[in-house]
Amino acid sequence: MAFGWIDEQAELRRRANLVRTLRPRPADSPLLDLASNDYLGLARHPEVTEGAARAARTWGGGATGSRLVTGTTELHAELERELADFCGFEAALVFSSGYAANLAAVATLGPHGSLIVSDAGNHASLIDGCRLARGARQVVGHADPEAVRKALRTHEGPAVVVSDTVFSVDGDAAPLAELAAACRERGAGLLVDDAHGLGVLGDGGRGAAQAAGLAGADDLVVTVTLSKSLGSQGGAVLGPARVIDHLVNAARTFIFDTGLAPAAAGAALAALRLLRREPQRAARARTVATDLYARLTAAGHQAVRPDAAVVSVRAPSPEQAVTWAAHCRTAGLAVGCFRPPSVPDGISRLRLTARADLTGAEIERAVLLIGETRP
Amino acid sequence: MAFGWIDEQAELRRRANLVRTLRPRPADSPLLDLASNDYLGLARHPEVTEGAARAARTWGGGATGSRLVTGTTELHAELERELADFCGFEAALVFSSGYAANLAAVATLGPHGSLIVSDAGNHASLIDGCRLARGARQVVGHADPEAVRKALRTHEGPAVVVSDTVFSVDGDAAPLAELAAACRERGAGLLVDDAHGLGVLGDGGRGAAQAAGLAGADDLVVTVTLSKSLGSQGGAVLGPARVIDHLVNAARTFIFDTGLAPAAAGAALAALRLLRREPQRAARARTVATDLYARLTAAGHQAVRPDAAVVSVRAPSPEQAVTWAAHCRTAGLAVGCFRPPSVPDGISRLRLTARADLTGAEIERAVLLIGETRP
Repeated sequence: MAFGWIDEQAELRRRANLVRTLRPRPADSPLLDLASNDYLGLARHPEVTEGAARAARTWGGGATGSRLVTGTTELHAELERELADFCGFEAALVFSSGYAANLAAVATLGPHGSLIVSDAGNHASLIDGCRLARGARQVVGHADPEAVRKALRTHEGPAVVVSDTVFSVDGDAAPLAELAAACRERGAGLLVDDAHGLGVLGDGGRGAAQAAGLAGADDLVVTVTLSKSLGSQGGAVLGPARVIDHLVNAARTFIFDTGLAPAAAGAALAALRLLRREPQRAARARTVATDLYARLTAAGHQAVRPDAAVVSVRAPSPEQAVTWAAHCRTAGLAVGCFRPPSVPDGISRLRLTARADLTGAEIERAVLLIGETRP
Repeated sequence: MAFGWIDEQAELRRRANLVRTLRPRPADSPLLDLASNDYLGLARHPEVTEGAARAARTWGGGATGSRLVTGTTELHAELERELADFCGFEAALVFSSGYAANLAAVATLGPHGSLIVSDAGNHASLIDGCRLARGARQVVGHADPEAVRKALRTHEGPAVVVSDTVFSVDGDAAPLAELAAACRERGAGLLVDDAHGLGVLGDGGRGAAQAAGLAGADDLVVTVTLSKSLGSQGGAVLGPARVIDHLVNAARTFIFDTGLAPAAAGAALAALRLLRREPQRAARARTVATDLYARLTAAGHQAVRPDAAVVSVRAPSPEQAVTWAAHCRTAGLAVGCFRPPSVPDGISRLRLTARADLTGAEIERAVLLIGETRP
């Protein structure tokens, strides 16, 4: 029977207790949210939702076509200019998702004959980008500039090093300055995904590249998402104008995809302007993360010191991680739960996000509930 | 220098006159639009834009996380139920784009050890899906059920046949019933992308599968976009519940992507309800296409008889296709222009879309302008 093999896989998942299910949330969830990536608490901000509403009314419900046909509006151009300016890059190109932006950047900047050096902890979208790219891929150890150096030495010709700036699972930061130095020694390009850095790291949330003094470098390309700190949907690639022009001409997930919906562009633009006006939101997200970490550690939990707004807490086993997260939810707290096969290192953990708009009382309550529900 | 090879490629593009540039459009473009994929003219419909605005206000500017963490709302669930019901399938799963839905469907339904049989005219997203899939791929001639039969005979074990229902470039339809028959002879699954069929083909726009009497078949999976007839952004996979469950558990562009923005879900849901209430819109799009084709042919143009709402007109050469489209634009008419390397067959053409809301006078004007600007 067609698709018969699916039933076998479903049975294996059931036996391994690895079934994923969707839990639709209501508009006003009673849960305290430490699970979303809404780092600055802007997704529900009235200026952001009004930005979305206004853009839909002005420009329509959708972009109506590829960015290269009818799908580029003056709103997209405005968002790209302001994003590039904010993060300190020459140009920006907006995609329908961060996933699409990463596929585009890796596949396009790792052409046939090139070498792509990829961190072992990279996000799925970067890994899929490597698989779509025509270049050869070498996976290197996590956050290891020496391994990158070694890999680059094996290749003559174009090369690009690909890494998250902040890794999603543990919230740890890549050694950006050292990666950039390793790249420059060999004339390689550096491509980093700042999905978890934009809005949190750098002056006023300008991102990891700005924090590392690398923003605008001609050998650096940064991808960001509009769906985390900016509370919207979409992704963007930031870099030298000639790289952005190349993406316009060669990136399949740009050319053959419908443009980002005006509402998403409008929401992201409103969030960006709000962040410019209230730069303290970025520092607040980092403070909340540090506070959360300190309290969790003081309560005896094994947490990873956060480099951005993600705090990872180790769980004793995959089963206990699931139970722990479920008990948190019952107690009114939403937390993320990572376990094999979603984590490359086999370590199960709770993943907490430190929203800038969490109050001290909410942080206290979260730590209390995590302690009370500990398996 | 890092990314130095980009300059060489840019130079080659310039010499070949193949440079693509973005042309941001204003909110109220004076151009007569025969270039977008807004087949039913719903992208600017007040109910659709209000659907987007209301959803943003109620649910926020973004989904805030993966659909499996915080990114599934009751709005997503509602849209999925109504989409599945409308098209006649057991279940549906919404993605952030049609591209992401296609990557997910092909990569997930073509696992290691399987055979993926792919039409030579398939959309880029289906091709990229094949490249991400672990199964073996065989590309077969365009719209050729016998070639599909032959390919399926070479393989024991799971197989899936992948095709667009309506091909984007020429607007021609796949022989769906014959493809389904070829699949059933071998117990293979059939996966079709109905991006250009939803809203146009079938009773009241229920799509190509419904038109072919195949909707809801347990060996059929259909992908659709929310960004064409539904005037929004996003994509969906429709099929048996066990296939959809498998995607929830295994599709990387589902699991590791932020959920579709509420505004996009709201706009698509509003458009779907409008289409249910006004089913004549689908037939009108087909009538406009037939009318456009008849008038173009009568005026001496070489056009492809449309199977849906896309009308393809042959241009004498790539250069002349570009000139033709540019002159149309100067004269106030937006048309699509396809030429190598975007077309697999090397034939350059204008691509016209027959919106349901085009008036007779607008169609007449379009045909006149196309004739006057012919190179």
